[in-house]
Amino acid sequence: MSRLAGRQFLNIPGPTNIPDRILQAMHRPALDFMTPEFWEIQVECRDNLKKVMKTDGEVMIYASSGHGSWEAAMTNICSPGDTVLMCETGRFSESWADMCKAFGLTVEVLANPWDRATDPNRVEERLRADTAGTIKAVAVVHNETSTGMTHDVAGIGAAIRAAGHPALLIVDTISSLASMDFRMDEWGVDVAVAGSQKGLMLPVGLGISAASEKALEATRTAKLPRKYYDWNEIKTGDHGRLRFAGTAPSHLFFAMREGLRLLLEEGLDNVFARHARLAEATRRAVRAWGRGNGPTLFGKDEAALSNSVTAVQMPAGFDANAFRGKVLSETNVALGGGLSRLNGKVFRIGHLGDLNEPMILGCLATVELQLKRQGIPHGAGGVDAAIEYLAGSLAAS
Amino acid sequence: MSRLAGRQFLNIPGPTNIPDRILQAMHRPALDFMTPEFWEIQVECRDNLKKVMKTDGEVMIYASSGHGSWEAAMTNICSPGDTVLMCETGRFSESWADMCKAFGLTVEVLANPWDRATDPNRVEERLRADTAGTIKAVAVVHNETSTGMTHDVAGIGAAIRAAGHPALLIVDTISSLASMDFRMDEWGVDVAVAGSQKGLMLPVGLGISAASEKALEATRTAKLPRKYYDWNEIKTGDHGRLRFAGTAPSHLFFAMREGLRLLLEEGLDNVFARHARLAEATRRAVRAWGRGNGPTLFGKDEAALSNSVTAVQMPAGFDANAFRGKVLSETNVALGGGLSRLNGKVFRIGHLGDLNEPMILGCLATVELQLKRQGIPHGAGGVDAAIEYLAGSLAAS
Amino acid sequence: MSRLAGRQFLNIPGPTNIPDRILQAMHRPALDFMTPEFWEIQVECRDNLKKVMKTDGEVMIYASSGHGSWEAAMTNICSPGDTVLMCETGRFSESWADMCKAFGLTVEVLANPWDRATDPNRVEERLRADTAGTIKAVAVVHNETSTGMTHDVAGIGAAIRAAGHPALLIVDTISSLASMDFRMDEWGVDVAVAGSQKGLMLPVGLGISAASEKALEATRTAKLPRKYYDWNEIKTGDHGRLRFAGTAPSHLFFAMREGLRLLLEEGLDNVFARHARLAEATRRAVRAWGRGNGPTLFGKDEAALSNSVTAVQMPAGFDANAFRGKVLSETNVALGGGLSRLNGKVFRIGHLGDLNEPMILGCLATVELQLKRQGIPHGAGGVDAAIEYLAGSLAAS
Amino acid sequence: MSRLAGRQFLNIPGPTNIPDRILQAMHRPALDFMTPEFWEIQVECRDNLKKVMKTDGEVMIYASSGHGSWEAAMTNICSPGDTVLMCETGRFSESWADMCKAFGLTVEVLANPWDRATDPNRVEERLRADTAGTIKAVAVVHNETSTGMTHDVAGIGAAIRAAGHPALLIVDTISSLASMDFRMDEWGVDVAVAGSQKGLMLPVGLGISAASEKALEATRTAKLPRKYYDWNEIKTGDHGRLRFAGTAPSHLFFAMREGLRLLLEEGLDNVFARHARLAEATRRAVRAWGRGNGPTLFGKDEAALSNSVTAVQMPAGFDANAFRGKVLSETNVALGGGLSRLNGKVFRIGHLGDLNEPMILGCLATVELQLKRQGIPHGAGGVDAAIEYLAGSLAAS
Repeated sequence: MSRLAGRQFLNIPGPTNIPDRILQAMHRPALDFMTPEFWEIQVECRDNLKKVMKTDGEVMIYASSGHGSWEAAMTNICSPGDTVLMCETGRFSESWADMCKAFGLTVEVLANPWDRATDPNRVEERLRADTAGTIKAVAVVHNETSTGMTHDVAGIGAAIRAAGHPALLIVDTISSLASMDFRMDEWGVDVAVAGSQKGLMLPVGLGISAASEKALEATRTAKLPRKYYDWNEIKTGDHGRLRFAGTAPSHLFFAMREGLRLLLEEGLDNVFARHARLAEATRRAVRAWGRGNGPTLFGKDEAALSNSVTAVQMPAGFDANAFRGKVLSETNVALGGGLSRLNGKVFRIGHLGDLNEPMILGCLATVELQLKRQGIPHGAGGVDAAIEYLAGSLAAS
Repeated sequence: MSRLAGRQFLNIPGPTNIPDRILQAMHRPALDFMTPEFWEIQVECRDNLKKVMKTDGEVMIYASSGHGSWEAAMTNICSPGDTVLMCETGRFSESWADMCKAFGLTVEVLANPWDRATDPNRVEERLRADTAGTIKAVAVVHNETSTGMTHDVAGIGAAIRAAGHPALLIVDTISSLASMDFRMDEWGVDVAVAGSQKGLMLPVGLGISAASEKALEATRTAKLPRKYYDWNEIKTGDHGRLRFAGTAPSHLFFAMREGLRLLLEEGLDNVFARHARLAEATRRAVRAWGRGNGPTLFGKDEAALSNSVTAVQMPAGFDANAFRGKVLSETNVALGGGLSRLNGKVFRIGHLGDLNEPMILGCLATVELQLKRQGIPHGAGGVDAAIEYLAGSLAAS
Repeated sequence: MSRLAGRQFLNIPGPTNIPDRILQAMHRPALDFMTPEFWEIQVECRDNLKKVMKTDGEVMIYASSGHGSWEAAMTNICSPGDTVLMCETGRFSESWADMCKAFGLTVEVLANPWDRATDPNRVEERLRADTAGTIKAVAVVHNETSTGMTHDVAGIGAAIRAAGHPALLIVDTISSLASMDFRMDEWGVDVAVAGSQKGLMLPVGLGISAASEKALEATRTAKLPRKYYDWNEIKTGDHGRLRFAGTAPSHLFFAMREGLRLLLEEGLDNVFARHARLAEATRRAVRAWGRGNGPTLFGKDEAALSNSVTAVQMPAGFDANAFRGKVLSETNVALGGGLSRLNGKVFRIGHLGDLNEPMILGCLATVELQLKRQGIPHGAGGVDAAIEYLAGSLAAS
Repeated sequence: MSRLAGRQFLNIPGPTNIPDRILQAMHRPALDFMTPEFWEIQVECRDNLKKVMKTDGEVMIYASSGHGSWEAAMTNICSPGDTVLMCETGRFSESWADMCKAFGLTVEVLANPWDRATDPNRVEERLRADTAGTIKAVAVVHNETSTGMTHDVAGIGAAIRAAGHPALLIVDTISSLASMDFRMDEWGVDVAVAGSQKGLMLPVGLGISAASEKALEATRTAKLPRKYYDWNEIKTGDHGRLRFAGTAPSHLFFAMREGLRLLLEEGLDNVFARHARLAEATRRAVRAWGRGNGPTLFGKDEAALSNSVTAVQMPAGFDANAFRGKVLSETNVALGGGLSRLNGKVFRIGHLGDLNEPMILGCLATVELQLKRQGIPHGAGGVDAAIEYLAGSLAAS
């Protein structure tokens, strides 16, 4: 096959588009990470991460993927046999639960249909019933990447407090952080789990944990073995800096410094508003397509539809993967596939990270083009609806 | 103002989008340009340029912009007082004529409305009338960037032969080369003028000249002074390489080597077909907008509308520059402005270089969004028409 | 302070100089790691790593630092309470032992002076004494970065076989791999631990494990909890590819593909010979300095002095860190410091990775310059000795 | 041949080492050069160039090599038949004279041995004799790259004034600017000719001209044809910006902005002192080598030896090019060759641009290594002398 021209549109839900300034920042020689030059970089990163996570807690950073941060969260606060109440959200709550089990934790799943948001009342109810206090932690994925549903972390935090239960609240913010608002301290989150490759717009390779005072306190009695991810080894020492297990991942820090600056230059509220706008444009397009027996929004709770990724259900009889394949090979737009039980049934449009109006419109127009080209039933006017919405909603310059 | 997120859509008619592989190729240390390592690079560039220009003539390359190549063309083949028949095409034929005059040439303009293609018959007619043989050269811009009209170089070449006139044919291919077909030898072109920053997808900074045997012969008697651009100094020597006036522009050669490889990997016919497809999609959108007293295609010869740039006439009473300004500042799409007498009256959509379907659709959708947003009258369905056309015309993968 | 001109000479023992081709390879957009494009990259990386590690075993790759690979090695083959015989080599055997203890392993240290190589006979002796078979694994650092001593892995492998003991042999190759020869299968190594940032010339961020059949077999009964680093999750599946815990660290894979190609283009034997040559030049310079009551080689076993890093003992009364500080701030050469009990007493010259003759000579000449400038006693002719040696030993072109 | 490891040492006298920050600055998408974003860049470049050139005159910038700037200088101030007094300095005064002749100028060469500096008294003498005022301009190369001799521009400026002659003073600063002090206004220079690829540390591709009031006045009557390089077209207009012939070479401007910032961050006086220091270290090494019937300094005027390049004369019977060839192919150091009549007789060590102590020491040590290896007679202690000198002369941190 001949070269596919032009830039690929990366509309998977992560890794996301890496801004040029970030790639430039990484294109430099290695340095001695035991020098003030690097210390300044790591301190700036940690401090700006606190602003993005809206926490005064400790922030720890590792060379790892987001799954490493999951492991860090559990091994630092749990002991073998502890019970974790895992809110079912989709593929990633499943995966996280598997990880907990591998570490000898008891996982109690708070069952929930994947196309609905978790109801905080059910968390409260369950905690109230736990009079023995066996539940060590409540775990929830803020934004479930496999379903495009956002779960009400503020509500769950309030539920724990309302129940008067001592459980820690652990939140996976991997696909929400820096795309939608996350208020760690205000919402009562004890551990936030994050990664570099989504809203932070960085290459894969950094895992991030933020821990509240209560979480740090929990490390004292937590008996799960740990070293690489041990918060007490990594957390800010008297010298005011993080310590790393081994050599610090300096090139990814060069990238992170620039990425955090970009976010703060745009302004977090502007970043969130932009994501909300591009997400709503996407949803309007999908709703229009759906009116003609075409693809529909997978999520059923309108209010909980994600601002970072939209899962789109294919009409019965059409394979989402075959559709995506041609979108990529013929028109150079990468869409996300359905995971686990949704494989082949949904495709996902990532609209998080460094994205703007022409980028999402180019993606949506290409999806519409391919619906037409592949003979998939759909209502007309998807892109028109997105244009109409954006014309009225974008920020004045 | 806060940071504008996402990648800017560069839909000016040059410089064009630079593919990542080209930027990577330039991101390297300087080298000694007097080494076999560089010689191989420059020979590959020259040889691949011949394939792109479809010529067995000599190809010369300079550190310069395209305007330098204009100057090279005239000073190498003309003597003071020589007459050049300049086909009027738009802003760039004006500019080129100014350059000729600065060098003491007599410029006879073959007048032509800017929204029409040059009629080769009129060239033939004029040459037949030149019984004294005072016309040294016929000059024509293959693709006039300011108007979006393509001029019939093959026809003009045939006209010169039909007239039996000795004039040389000089063609500006700056915004056509590597976007639409140009057949230097087959069409009887003596001098082709090109630059790096359009279809070749490179940064600005290289001027290119190709010369036929007849043109090289003309250098013997051409009396205009020249040194930097002197073909007899630069052209391939016995060692099989070009010689440069001073230090060779090696970083731009690193870029050019990669750019030419990209073009040949895609295949020139695929490149031309892609440009034709994206251009037609653009025209279909504009025609739809025009049906509602909106913006229309500037060019009146449908068959001569350019495949590299489309000039769009604003409806009376609306300023094209004000429109473009907001397209850029609010939605991060850069459009070209109207030049010279078209300033404020047209805007131009560049669709040349490294572009694909989602990129042009993103651009067109954003233009439609802004027509709506800025209250400019326009017919509905522009993007729909583009999608419809592309769905039926794109190459199977 | 004003800008320090020129390129910094990075003569720490890792991270090492990253070749331009590797940085170029990383300077590109993110991609969907679930596509054939990425699969080809990861398969090439894994297969070329096997060549570099000289093994037919399984190779696993993680987003982690080298310390993550340590953890992977122990958690995949050990159960709580298992005994590990750790050969004392220096700071890194200490650190690794700490990690083992954190996971509940019993660490028995085979004590050894830091300036001497481990004697394989002592390993054999100890294993023969372990008639109860309590020792699960023998762990050794192939090249101890803190002391500049290389330990005889082949000999230790032979010792285990000679003792007829079932212990697995786990080797840290972090600062040896791709700088000096390492023959996993031939030497009878069961687990090799590696990282990206030294001989592989990559940024920090990838941990690597290679496992023999025996090691993979051991995972079946190994009871330490693991998930992120679980070899049975990651190792090559039926589809012929590795699986990652979460998103694959694609940008670091782009880098690794290029780095492995560079190594194989140079030829592993050439790479090793180059390191041996540059190391010997360094040692000759240090020996000359030492003759005037100056800095001396820290290691006492001449045959075991490392080809990737040389530890240099400062004369009594002079602080190695103060010396290094000025070498960096005045003359832009970064040297490694002494670790743990060697802090302030030694400085280390890294000569691993992408280094050549002018680079090491520039480093050594600058060290000599600073010995002079800072009034530190030293014998004359250090650089002369290095030049003399290299003039006679470098490969003909 | 297998890959040559490590970074090449680029010790040719241009193009020079490009700092990473400059390469990073160029690694970005193209932009619309008709926007305020680019205008700011070009204004900053022009203004900072004025600081570097120490002039309040006009500065013009072109897409060209330095040879283009030569052409610009002559065509903007001369008319056909004008006489130029060209101070003989070496290969580049020859070349420049050829260029003048190609434009119909009369060149009178002020003959001078290549290994001596031009005597300003002889310029004064010649001008006093020119009672008819036929000499339009005096042309001199500030630093002759082919010989490594610096010529006394201040003295020549004073000579012109002392002679009371109206000739303009045109100075080629291509290999001096930003490496050694150049004071355009104070020294009475009318036209300064410069390029991007030496002291400015940029890729090849920008030509620079600075013009005094008197030079701009001269353009009014200068009859040589010009357009691409026409100062009156390019110079700062009422809008406060330069105008370009065609598309502005924006990527090279991105580079230039960063390069000028680097120079000003270091401080021009620091830059000049550094070049003087590294040059003197080089000369001390060569003098030591010369004491053993080895290579010697080509230049005979000690006071005029260049701080940007040192020409080294090979001992009789040894070919400089054969020597250089092995220095490059075996040890990855690129040295300059002898030009014109010096071909094969001298090699040149460039020590200009982004260079520091370890870089020059690595180069000198490698040259000494190769003298030894290739059996070329030479005195011992070249590098030692350089180290000794630098130890005493470098700036305190």
